Formats: sequence, structure tokens, C-alpha cells
Amino acid sequence: MSKSYVYGFDQSPEPAQGSPRSLLGGKGANLAEMTRLGLPVPPGFTVSTPTCLAYLENEAAWPQGAKEQVLDALERLASTLGKRLGDAESPLLVSVRSGAAVSMPGMMDTVLNLGLNDQTVEAMAKATGNRRFAFDSYRRFLQMYSDVVLGLDRDRLEDLLEQAKEREGVFLDSELSVDALEKLVGTYKLFIQETTGSPFPTDPLEQLWAAIEAVFSSWHNRRAIDYRNAHDIPHDLGTAVNIQAMVFGNMGEDSATGVAFTRDPSTGDRRFFGEWLRNAQGEDVVAGIRTPQPINNDCSVLEGDETLEEGMPGPYADLVRVYENLERHYRDMQDIEFTIESGVLWMLQTRTGKRTPRAEVKIAVDMVEEGLIDSREAVRRVSTVSVEKLLHPQLDPSAPRNVIARGLGASPGAATGTLTFHADDAVDRAGRGEAVILVRRETSPEDIHGMLKAQGILTARGGMTSHAAVVARGLSKPCIVGAGELAIDPDACTLTVGGLTLSQGDTVTLDGGDGTVMLGDIPTIQPETRPEVEVLMSWVDDIRRLGVWTNADTARDCKVARDFGAEGIGLCRTEHMFFDEGRILAVREMILSEDEEGRRGALAKLLPMQKGDFKAIFEVMETLPVTIRLLDPPLHEFLPQSDDEVRSLARDLGVDYEALAARNHLLEEVNPMLGHRGCRLGLTYPEIYEMQVRAIVEAAAEVRREQGFMVQPKIMIPLVSHERELSLLRQIVENTIERVLSGYEGVELEVAIGTMIELPRACITAGAIAEHADFFSFGTNDLTQTTFGISRDDGAKFLPLYADLGVLGVDPFIAMDDGVADLVAMASERGRAARPGLNLGICGEHGGEPSSVERCHRMGLDYVSCSPFRVPVARLAAAHAVLNEEAS
Amino acid sequence: MSKSYVYGFDQSPEPAQGSPRSLLGGKGANLAEMTRLGLPVPPGFTVSTPTCLAYLENEAAWPQGAKEQVLDALERLASTLGKRLGDAESPLLVSVRSGAAVSMPGMMDTVLNLGLNDQTVEAMAKATGNRRFAFDSYRRFLQMYSDVVLGLDRDRLEDLLEQAKEREGVFLDSELSVDALEKLVGTYKLFIQETTGSPFPTDPLEQLWAAIEAVFSSWHNRRAIDYRNAHDIPHDLGTAVNIQAMVFGNMGEDSATGVAFTRDPSTGDRRFFGEWLRNAQGEDVVAGIRTPQPINNDCSVLEGDETLEEGMPGPYADLVRVYENLERHYRDMQDIEFTIESGVLWMLQTRTGKRTPRAEVKIAVDMVEEGLIDSREAVRRVSTVSVEKLLHPQLDPSAPRNVIARGLGASPGAATGTLTFHADDAVDRAGRGEAVILVRRETSPEDIHGMLKAQGILTARGGMTSHAAVVARGLSKPCIVGAGELAIDPDACTLTVGGLTLSQGDTVTLDGGDGTVMLGDIPTIQPETRPEVEVLMSWVDDIRRLGVWTNADTARDCKVARDFGAEGIGLCRTEHMFFDEGRILAVREMILSEDEEGRRGALAKLLPMQKGDFKAIFEVMETLPVTIRLLDPPLHEFLPQSDDEVRSLARDLGVDYEALAARNHLLEEVNPMLGHRGCRLGLTYPEIYEMQVRAIVEAAAEVRREQGFMVQPKIMIPLVSHERELSLLRQIVENTIERVLSGYEGVELEVAIGTMIELPRACITAGAIAEHADFFSFGTNDLTQTTFGISRDDGAKFLPLYADLGVLGVDPFIAMDDGVADLVAMASERGRAARPGLNLGICGEHGGEPSSVERCHRMGLDYVSCSPFRVPVARLAAAHAVLNEEAS
Repeated sequence: MSKSYVYGFDQSPEPAQGSPRSLLGGKGANLAEMTRLGLPVPPGFTVSTPTCLAYLENEAAWPQGAKEQVLDALERLASTLGKRLGDAESPLLVSVRSGAAVSMPGMMDTVLNLGLNDQTVEAMAKATGNRRFAFDSYRRFLQMYSDVVLGLDRDRLEDLLEQAKEREGVFLDSELSVDALEKLVGTYKLFIQETTGSPFPTDPLEQLWAAIEAVFSSWHNRRAIDYRNAHDIPHDLGTAVNIQAMVFGNMGEDSATGVAFTRDPSTGDRRFFGEWLRNAQGEDVVAGIRTPQPINNDCSVLEGDETLEEGMPGPYADLVRVYENLERHYRDMQDIEFTIESGVLWMLQTRTGKRTPRAEVKIAVDMVEEGLIDSREAVRRVSTVSVEKLLHPQLDPSAPRNVIARGLGASPGAATGTLTFHADDAVDRAGRGEAVILVRRETSPEDIHGMLKAQGILTARGGMTSHAAVVARGLSKPCIVGAGELAIDPDACTLTVGGLTLSQGDTVTLDGGDGTVMLGDIPTIQPETRPEVEVLMSWVDDIRRLGVWTNADTARDCKVARDFGAEGIGLCRTEHMFFDEGRILAVREMILSEDEEGRRGALAKLLPMQKGDFKAIFEVMETLPVTIRLLDPPLHEFLPQSDDEVRSLARDLGVDYEALAARNHLLEEVNPMLGHRGCRLGLTYPEIYEMQVRAIVEAAAEVRREQGFMVQPKIMIPLVSHERELSLLRQIVENTIERVLSGYEGVELEVAIGTMIELPRACITAGAIAEHADFFSFGTNDLTQTTFGISRDDGAKFLPLYADLGVLGVDPFIAMDDGVADLVAMASERGRAARPGLNLGICGEHGGEPSSVERCHRMGLDYVSCSPFRVPVARLAAAHAVLNEEAS
Repeated sequence: MSKSYVYGFDQSPEPAQGSPRSLLGGKGANLAEMTRLGLPVPPGFTVSTPTCLAYLENEAAWPQGAKEQVLDALERLASTLGKRLGDAESPLLVSVRSGAAVSMPGMMDTVLNLGLNDQTVEAMAKATGNRRFAFDSYRRFLQMYSDVVLGLDRDRLEDLLEQAKEREGVFLDSELSVDALEKLVGTYKLFIQETTGSPFPTDPLEQLWAAIEAVFSSWHNRRAIDYRNAHDIPHDLGTAVNIQAMVFGNMGEDSATGVAFTRDPSTGDRRFFGEWLRNAQGEDVVAGIRTPQPINNDCSVLEGDETLEEGMPGPYADLVRVYENLERHYRDMQDIEFTIESGVLWMLQTRTGKRTPRAEVKIAVDMVEEGLIDSREAVRRVSTVSVEKLLHPQLDPSAPRNVIARGLGASPGAATGTLTFHADDAVDRAGRGEAVILVRRETSPEDIHGMLKAQGILTARGGMTSHAAVVARGLSKPCIVGAGELAIDPDACTLTVGGLTLSQGDTVTLDGGDGTVMLGDIPTIQPETRPEVEVLMSWVDDIRRLGVWTNADTARDCKVARDFGAEGIGLCRTEHMFFDEGRILAVREMILSEDEEGRRGALAKLLPMQKGDFKAIFEVMETLPVTIRLLDPPLHEFLPQSDDEVRSLARDLGVDYEALAARNHLLEEVNPMLGHRGCRLGLTYPEIYEMQVRAIVEAAAEVRREQGFMVQPKIMIPLVSHERELSLLRQIVENTIERVLSGYEGVELEVAIGTMIELPRACITAGAIAEHADFFSFGTNDLTQTTFGISRDDGAKFLPLYADLGVLGVDPFIAMDDGVADLVAMASERGRAARPGLNLGICGEHGGEPSSVERCHRMGLDYVSCSPFRVPVARLAAAHAVLNEEAS
């Protein structure tokens, strides 16, 4: 049997062909699915994804037999409908749409009304008795065909349309007269002839081949590639092409077109939600040229709006039945496109709807309650990105706001940045580290690369389902659309509103939740937690195996982290406490002392302060583990750098300036990252570590005595590269603990002693090191620096180039690198082999990055530790790791 | 059967007890061996090493039964000799000497004449008819016992002796009258009573136990520990104790004592060589208090000297027979001690003689020619340290010398440094990086730590076998002894000679070969190669498997390296060429260019210069491989640092100072070691690598054409951490090679392209990297820095402390560390697994360090590469690696 390239919506592919989705694309699979469900779908067929791949791989030649299969399917369609492509009496018109396996909204191209030419338009006019409709469809077809198939500048054709409207003195496309439309068709054809050197193809079959091939080729266009890069979608999937009999929303006042979400994509609330336009075709809604109307009263209805529910109650009732059917079938919120032709409802598309992070959680949790899915599925459906966005700062409601405009809050969250008016500028300026807001009249797929780099997006036109809104929600970027008061001049790069003119570089703040545009930088506060998030997170905690701890240096941070669900402190850096205004002088005195006696004197001043810090932390953390790292950074970091500061310090300490400057200079290092720091300091100046251990143990003993709960101090020795460093320091620490505890009779206390594993040598010799360690905590920041030989401070000089060249697709300081992960795995194995049950965690920045958390899960670590705000993300990532493991 | 603790010299231990050497110590084993050979050895017995260890481990308690075995052995000795310890008629006197398994000259302690007390001294006087001898022996015993057993200050007893001599107005000890000696004995006993609070023990058995225990305990004294640390001798061996019937070299004018070497320990020449003293005991010779006489005319005989050969021809003839017997038996040069008592020769010790590097090679090669050993044994016997010393610079014979004194050249080589008069000062000042010369009247074991740190040693007293001379030869340090003209004042820290007074800190130069002391710093030149070295090295090359290449940047270095036997260049650093006066301006112009065009302009100026360098190198290396590393260091290294220099550069380049300063500043890095360098530069500025590749390939092609031989260029890309860095740069390099070669029609050339493996990540991902590499060259300097996280520039702040604490016994930048070696082994395995036959070498400093060379051999690398002067050492180390592998 020869290979199948083409499938009718009513034909099931053989299971051997792979999943319907990968074979037919998301759109095609869903059209077939809806057809099977008995929903009103205009008939059609799908040219499969492998056909596209074969075409692209074979230098734009169709695979053998494929074209014939298209012709057969067309014949079948013709006989079903009694219409035939190009037939002068009863012409068949079709839409040609792309549909990849993964949803890529607006990325690929669509041609409607294909099959029209000077003959068939007349037949259409005659058949419908609506000449205006026929010519409106014709001019739309010419416009789309020019853009998508011929690659002409869409603005030029749009200009010609605007000129026609000006000539007639009308505002809306639908107000154009038949005459004007006929003339416009002529003008378009002339323009095509002049620009391409060839006449517009009048053979509908020629039109069809060209349109399908254009869709195939668009897989490789710039914006498709950009989108796939931004969303980590492989480039070798290809797209299917759907050819479907046209139905017409622009056939008159009893026709309409619309898009809807089965639940609110912004809040997740269970309400049917959408927009429609009477007497229009689909692209009128999504392109944001005419402002669409709400479909029902659940949508925000403004004065003068007409809902579909009221305007066309019959088709609306059909639509409600359809959407309920779809949600039950797909068990997820759907994004649907429909057309009403002369009062009859037709479904053109259904797909899983994009939603805001807030809606993502709400819908997942609601669907568990509705019995549609189970809690594991709910957890699987919520992405870590969404949870992270939910934690993003919101605007401080008490901060004064200078609101300069209002639009539709299309994607929530607050964003502040400088105005930019072109996508390319946004990319440039963001590349220089600027936070930018991209401002456009309306966005189109050409703006994707700029949207990716912007903090937020603001448009003057369009609705909640406009390109800008859909894309921004997908990107989880704050976005306001349809802020019609704004006069945007992209050439002058200005925005004028209410007499105020802002230029490129001026700062504005967007609230993507309520749609307000504010002047300047508005302070933000932390978001409130919604109850459904708590429900979801309780399921998350049931599923995950990894502990999630936090990196926190102060009692306040600890409080925040506990509120976010942290189960311990994986890294408490003592040096941040040293920088306190009240302490830095004593720290400097200690560092600059010539001898141990001088150091001990200064340390004695620091002891009560450190102890106080630790008491406060133990009080917050109660019985949870608190891992305190002894002093790590090179001492030079604590010293003043400028000459003036050194002079002033000399005065404060009452010492000679020259001597101080000399000692300061002596502490400078060529490569401080690889210098005299970490346990090397502890061995050189054991009195420092002794003081810190004393402070920790006294604090723990006192909290234990005063509060009664069993605190869990864990002392962590940094930068160990050789077991003997640890064995020597462990002895010092143990002796100090014993000495201190002898002063707290009757206080029971267990103090674990472990080490940071943050150097390659420590990983390699982890077996020997484990003999002296109660726990390992992987410091993957430093481990990444030394494994790669890249200084985080200096890497910026070449890491962006490396990203461009594809050398390092992902910044290894953001997501754990393969090589670094190999070392962590090696150290874990060797450490556990030498000491079964060795407690293992990670306290680098990677501890809150989902792919790294998954690695930690797979390597069998006991916990990850990350900054307080990333704790929920880490919890979710840890649960996903379990679910992914089960699925694999 | 109960355990044996004690062995008579005539008793063979059971083989199950382990090697005689480890059981009885070197001295004891050799005394037993000589006894078995029928040589004249005074009878005695050995208390074994395990006895010492048991005693030390058991808190200074003898193991059960051991003391009884000593008493049994003593009884056997008594019945053999018809003398008994403490017998008032016929007293037995014994020596008690330590003897560890590994020779540690002067480290452990000796007590002679044990058994004397007020009764037995009278018996001795009566039995020998020589009262003076008896009391001289008694006072010697008291002195040694006080020092070794009671731990009293030896100088105090020496002072009392000096006072006695002053009172009698005599110069030599042997001139003291019997009366004076009797009084001195009384004075000593009084001193002992007053200082220790107890009388001198008169019971000889009590003396014996105390003496044995003192020897046991001395295993743990400071100087023994220092010596073991310096020579990598384990601390858990313990020492044996030899108890031997005394024979007396001080019994009158027909008695004598001496030490000798069976060959010249300085030159290795085959001549019997030694020193003797009439009417003296052994310690008189080695302590350097009386200047000994040559034993024959082969030694350097001065006016008025009396040789043993002439003075005591009978015993001398016996001695010659004995030494020939010993050399045949041991098949190595021996260091012997003998005593002649009343004309009868007795052997007190034989051991393998310490020798200078020159003698080591000479003796090894001669013994092969004499048929005593084979060439593999000869290679095994020559240490890499010796070969290294042989390559050490010697004083330039044409340089003017201000000779201020002459002594005996006790250990050859030239040393320059500042005068220090105390061992502790030498340690302090050397620790601060100063090169010091330790000056002492005579050295004693208390000076070991200072000698270890000094560049050279100079003494006013003593002979070629004095403590200073023996120890210095062992340490391969230049040493001059017996420079009697020097008046040394250790309190004032001055040295006066011929009216000239030098103080601590003044610079002198020693020639340990001819014994001249010179004022100031004298220039040095390379040593001549001796024919026996060439013979030895030819055997070395037959044995070794590893190739030995060199790190050389200039044609001149290449020439030197080839003369030393280098078989290729493993590392030619191109950046050193950049610092040339004629080039640095163009280099800076390139670095400071704002754009690629500017850089290309400057690079065009550098191209002919680099090409010229490479042509010269290819001409020297002929068909040997030449591995050239493309630019590696951060660009900032090439820029001027001071403000004045930047201003001057701005003038030279004709650019604005402010702009130049700003760009210079921009290139500064926080951690340049981990910064924008190596292949990161190559990817950022491919035009630099293109220019360098062009220079290499043009040079190679032209030398190939002009000289006709097949040059072997290998292009090495530094600092790769990710395979994609290498794959991208390989493409650029290959394209450039192809482009350049197209201009040299008919010239065949193979250019290998490989990479430095010098980052942990490169080791871990070596499999993927090997896909793009023709060879790996391990850059173990950088690999050590990143594996440990230690900057070589900053490590000096804590590495000395780490050595003291025993954290890092060996500096990992000198000898390859275990962890680093693990990574190298991993990379080798993974690289070869991915690409069988991958060429592997090492080009870090470790390539010339023997233990690291051995590691490289065991890991199966193809070659090591080191600096030209270390090439012979590396060759020998590579041969040793083969021999060690065979032996293991």
C-alpha cells in the first residue's frame, strides 16, 4: 500500500502513523476530533506533517503521489458539497491553514477564500445574492494571498484599502461600497502584476498549490524560528496544512465570526468568555482592526456593546452546547474559533487555550474539584514558570500613581521600563541591559523578537484575543492592549496622550492586571497568595521527594522562606552580617590586626552580634535544620577600596595610614575567586572560625533552653578541596563546641558538621572528604566557575557571544551544566559509598531552577536550597521531577 | 615459641621476620652481614626495630620478655669475651648505637664506652696499663651519656673541657694529663648531680637500659622528624639498637680510628678514599674537632700529613682487603668506619656511601663496565635529583671572582645567598623568599632545618666526612667545610676574614666543587656534559616508553632542548613572541582597535614577524613535532599598566588618551585566570587565530619547500571547556590552512589540530571533545588551579601554611596531585574511547617532575613536555617509571 499523505477530517489515520497530533498537527487533529464528536465542522482534509518535511528536505519538491492524494481529497470534498474549485456556477472556496504539532499562535500563515477569481466571484455573488460580500471576500483573498503566498508588503495593500476608504469617506471596511470593493480588487491585481511582474493567478488549483507550499515554507521563516527558539520547540517537526471548505462570517448581518475561551484565560474563572464580530471574517477579530464585541454578559460589557447571546441567541445556544462538549472531551480549557454563516454555527478550530499563570493554577485546581482530572494531573499541568510569575511583584497599591492611559489588562503583572517603539530597538536596548516597554499600535508576528526582550507590551489597538494579548500571555509578560487614547508615532518614536508627549527612553509602568499605564517607576509589593495556589502546593508537597530548603541570611528572610514552604536553611552566609554598619569597623579591625591577639580582640566585639543574629534565626526556624556557613569571602572584600576611605578608616582605628594602606594592599589578590578564602582563612586564622562556632553554639543552646524546642544547627565549612582541610577544621570546630557546651549544663544539642562541595577536587575526592563530613552541600555557583574556568564576574565579556554561537545555549550559571552535573553525581556516589546515609543538598543558584532541581532529584540528593522567592518553584519542580520519572 | 626481640650479629633471623634491614636496621643488618662474611667485627647484638616500636607505642614500656632477651645476649657476649659488664676485674664496655632501616646519618644517637664507672675505670686502667686512656674514655662516656641519655646541654660539658685545657695550657684533647682528666671526670659528675638532681648512675646495667631507651625515644626528636620529612621517610619505622663490645682507637699510638669510602664520593673515581686519626675514638673524626689525616696518597695530601698507608701499613693492608671484599659483596660503593686497637683492625660499620650526583653517575656507569651490575640497575641507581643537580649552573669561569676564603669543597655546585648565622634565621629568611647561605663554625644535627632551607652551607671546621659535608651531599646542596681562616661570631652574626668583616645579609657565593668562598653574586654558566652521563642517558632512552618533548618558545630554546634530547615541542607559546620590543606596539594597536578592520590592520603587521619565528623553529626542529598554542592570555596582559605608560602609548598610536585609558580599563578583569582568554579570544576575534594559523602554515610550507624535510606542525587550541568551542575553531583553522596551502602548490603538509585539556569540564567531557581533536595536551598548571580552586599567583598566602599543617605535603604545582591525576586519567580514557589512538601528552610544569612523569607513564600518555633543562630528568624519570612498573 502506498504511503498516505492526506487525511480527510472524517478519516482516522492508522495508529502506526504515530499520534494524530504529530501526523496532522494540532489544528488538523482537533478538526478531525471535532468531526468525530459530531460537532459542526466544515468538511476538509489535512496534508500531513511528513509531507511538509519531505517537501522541505527534498528542495521544495512534493513527495511522489502526494499531489494526487490532494486532488482525490478535493474531489471527495467537491462531491460532498456539490461545489467544485473554480466552477463558474457553484465554486468551492477553501481556507488553507497551517497547523503544527505544537501550538504556535500567529506564527504560521493562513489563506482564506481560496478559489476566487474573476469568474467565481461572480458565481458567489449570484449564489449568495450578495455582491458586496463576494467582492469583499475577493479583496480579502487578494490581500492574504499577496502577503502569505507572494510575500508582498502587507502595509502597501493596507494603504490601498485606506485610500479607498478615504475616497469614500468611510471609517470601517464593512462600510465600503460594492463599487469601491470592485475597484479595489482591480487596484490590487494591478499592484500584484507591477510588483511581481506576473499577473495574479486565476487558476484556483494553481492558487492552492502555491498556498500549501507557502505554508510549508513558512515553517522556516524568521518569526517561526524565533518563536521555536523562545519556547524550546524543536525545529525538525514541520507543519501540517488544513484545507477546509469556507464558511462565511461576512455573508451579511446574520453571519458572524468569533473566538472564545471556555474559561477566563486571565483569571481562570469558570465562565465562557469570548469576542465576536458581526459580518466579518476570522482575521478581523484576531488582527484587532475592528474592536470586537463580548459574546455574553460574563464578559466585560461596555455601554453600547452587543453580546452574541443577545444578538444571535440561537447560534449562541449551539455554541454553549459545543463548548461544554469540548471541555468534557478534552478535560482542559479550550480556545475555539467559530463562524456563523447565515445563522448556522460552524466550528473552525479548538485547541488547548493559553492562559495566565493565575488561570493555569485556578483551572487545574477547579478541574480536580470538578472531577475532570486528578491532582497529579493538575500538578503536571502547572508550569514552574507560572508559579514563578505568580510570585512576581505587583504594584504597591498605596504608591501614588500617575495614570496616563487605560487599556485592556491582557496579561497580568507589573512591568516598568523605558519606552521603545520598534522591536529591533527593544532587542538592542534590552541587550544593553535596559528594561524596555515595547509600544506598538498593534503587534504582528514580526514583533516577536522584540516582545521576547521587553519587560512589557503596550498596544493602542486590539482586544483580549489580539496578537499582542495572546503572545504576551504565552510569554507571561505584562501586557495592555487597546489603549485607544494613545497616539503612537513610530517614526518620531513618540506617544502622545492627553497633551502629554513621551519619547523613546521615558519610563512608564504597566499594570497588566487592570490595564493602567502609569508615568515613571512605581514601587512593587509581593503578590497575595490565592487559595487555589495553596491547594495546588499541598498536592505538590504530597508528590515530591526532594526537600526544599532556602538560602537565607537573616531572620526576616527566614520568615519569608518559611511562609513560602521552606523546610530548612541550606545556606546561611555569615559574611553578609559582617557588612552591617555597626559591625564593619570591628570586622576591619580584625582583618587589619597584625597578630592573633589583635584579631581576638576585634572578634570578641563581633561575637555578641553574631550570636544575636543566630538566636533570631533559630527562633524563626524552630526545629528545622539551619545550615550556617563559616566565613568564606577573601578578607579584602571587607576593606575600603578608595584612598579616602582608607584614610578615614585609619583615623577610626587610630592607626597609621601608611601601614594600613600597605596591609590593605597586601590583601589584594590577582584572582580573588581562587585566593585566600573559605576554609583557607579558617586554617590561617582559626580564631575567626572559633568565634563563629562559639556564636552559633551559644545561640543554639540558649534558644534550646529558652524556647524548649530542639534546634538543628549545621555548621558548614566552605571551599574544601582536600580531606585534611576538613579533618583539621572539624577538630577545631568540635573542640569549640565541646568547650562552649560545657558552659550550658543540661542543654542537649546535636550539631552537624559538614562541608560545601564547590571545587572539582572536592567532587573527585568526595569519598575521603565524606569520612569527616556529616553532610555535603553542593555550591554549584563556584563549582560551575571552576569546572568551566569561567569567572562569573568576567564571563559577561563572552557568554553572550557563546549564546549567539550556540556554544552554550543555556547560561551554565542559570541551569546546571552537564559537566557540572557529572561532578555532582560523582561526588554524591563517592560520598555515599564512603558514608552511607550522607546527607546531600545543593545550595547554589541552581537550587531554584527547575531543570537543575530535576537533576538533583534524579541524582538522589536529599534537598535543594534556593532563595526564599524561588521556594515554591523548587517545590513544584521537585514534584514534576517525580511525575516525569514516573512517565519515563 | 616466644617472640624474638634480640639477635646476635652471628645469628640469622628467620625469614618470616621480614628483611634483615627492616628488622635490624641498616647498621645492624650490615654488622651481621660483615660478621657472616668473616670480617673482623667486634661481637655484639641488635635489639630489633619492632622492639622500639612496641616500646614507643606502649608508653615507654618494654614488651614482655624483651629485657630478658637483652640480658641473655649480654651473657653470651660476656662468655665469648670473658668480660662482664661492671666487673671490677675484667669489665665489658659496649657501644650503644641506633640504626634505622633507612640511613639517617647523624640523626639518631650513639653512646660509647658504656659500662664505665669509678670501679671499672680503674680495672680498665690496670688491664691496659694506660690510665690516661681509661680516664679519657670515662670522660667521653660521661659527656655522651649526659648529652644523649640525660639530655644535658652538650656545650656546657664542652666548656668544662675547654676550661680544663686552658688550665693546663694545651690545645688538643689528647694533650690533657691524666690528672686533668680525672679532675674533669669529677667535675662532670658534679655537674650531672647538680643539673639533674641525681647522681650519675654507677650501675652499668642501669646505664644500658637508659641508653637503649634514649635511642628508642630519639626516633621522635625534632631533628629526626625534620630529616624524615625532608627525605619522605615514613615516621612509623622505628629504629633498632646495636650493642657492641667496645674496641678502642684511643688506646695509644698504635691505635686509631677512621672512616673511608670505597670510591671517591665526590667524583666517583675508583680510588679508596678516607680519613683517620691516631689515638682517637670515632666521633673525633666525624665531629670535625680534630682535623683528620688522609688514609692514602689517593687522597689530597698536604704538607705534614701522615697517611694510614704509611703510618700503619699492616692494618692498612687489612683494610684494603676488607673494602674490596665489601664492594664485591654489596656491588656498590661503601662508606665504612673502622678502628685499629693496638694494631688490630676492627670494622664498626659499612653502609652504602652517600655521593655527589657526579659520583653517582660515574660509579653506576663504571660498575656496569666492571661487570658488577647491569645497565638497568645502573639507571635505577641514578636519581633524577642527581641528574637535575648535574645540570645545575656552575660558576662562570670567566667571571671575576673576589675569593675571600678557601675550604674543602664538600658538595659541589654553586650557591649564592645572603649570610645567616643560625639555622632558625635561615628558615625565617628563606621563608620570606631570600636565598641564604648558612654559616656555622661546624654544623650539628640541630642545624638540619636550617640546612634544608639554605642554598649552601659554609663551615669553619670539619673535614670531608664531617656532619656538614655528609648532610649537604645527601641534600645535594653546595657545601664548603673546614674554611679555617674564617672567624665566625654567631652572637654578633659576623664573619671576619683577612681584615674583612661581613654581617648577616651580606651576599657571598660558594663553589662547593673547589671550596672557594667569594664575595657577592657571581654569574653562572651551564655545566659541561661528562661522557658517563651520555652513556647512562643512552641506556635511559633504551628503557623508557614515554616520549620526552619540550616547552620552548624560541629557536634558541629549541636548540638547547634538542641538545638535551627533546623529541619534539609540546608547547610553543606564541604570546611570548608578542612581548618583543619591536612587536608590542602592533600587538597593542590590535588589542585597542575598536573594530575588526583595525585589528586586521595591526595583525597584518604581526604576521611576517610570527612567520619568521615559526620558520626558525621549524628549521631547528626539522622533522620533529612542533606544537604551537594559539594566543592564550587575557589581552589586558599586553597593555601598559601605569598611567604614564598609557599616555605614552596613546602618543605612539596617535589616539586619544581618555579613550585609550577607558578601553584599557574595560579589559581589566576581576579574575583574569578565569576570564576572557584562550579559545574565548579565538571565538571573539577569529582574525587573531586566523593570522596565527596563517603564520604557522606559511612558515611550515616554506621550510618544507626550502629544506626538503617534512615538518610536523601541530596547532593547539587553548582553554577549551566545551566541544563546540573546539568544533567551531577547528573549522576556522581548517579553512585557513586550506586557503594558505592553496598558495603553495605542490607542497605537501599535514597539520594536526588539537587542544589543551586544562579545565575540569574538558576532562569530564573529553569524549565529546576528542571527536574534534587530533591530540590532547594536558595543561596541568591551569588544571591544577581550577581543580583546586587555587590561583597560583595568590596561593603563596596559604600554601606554606598548608605544607606546615600537612594538608598539602607536596605543592600541587610542583608534583601532580591525586585529584588532578584522576581528571587526567578520566580524560585520557574518555578521549581514547571516543577516538582510539588519540595522541596524548602533558605540557604543564609537571612534565619534568619525576613523580608526575611516572604518573603519565602509568596513565599511558604518549609523551611529556617540559622546559629544556628538565628534559634529561624527564627522560630518566620515564625510564624509572618502566623499571618501577617491572618491579611492582
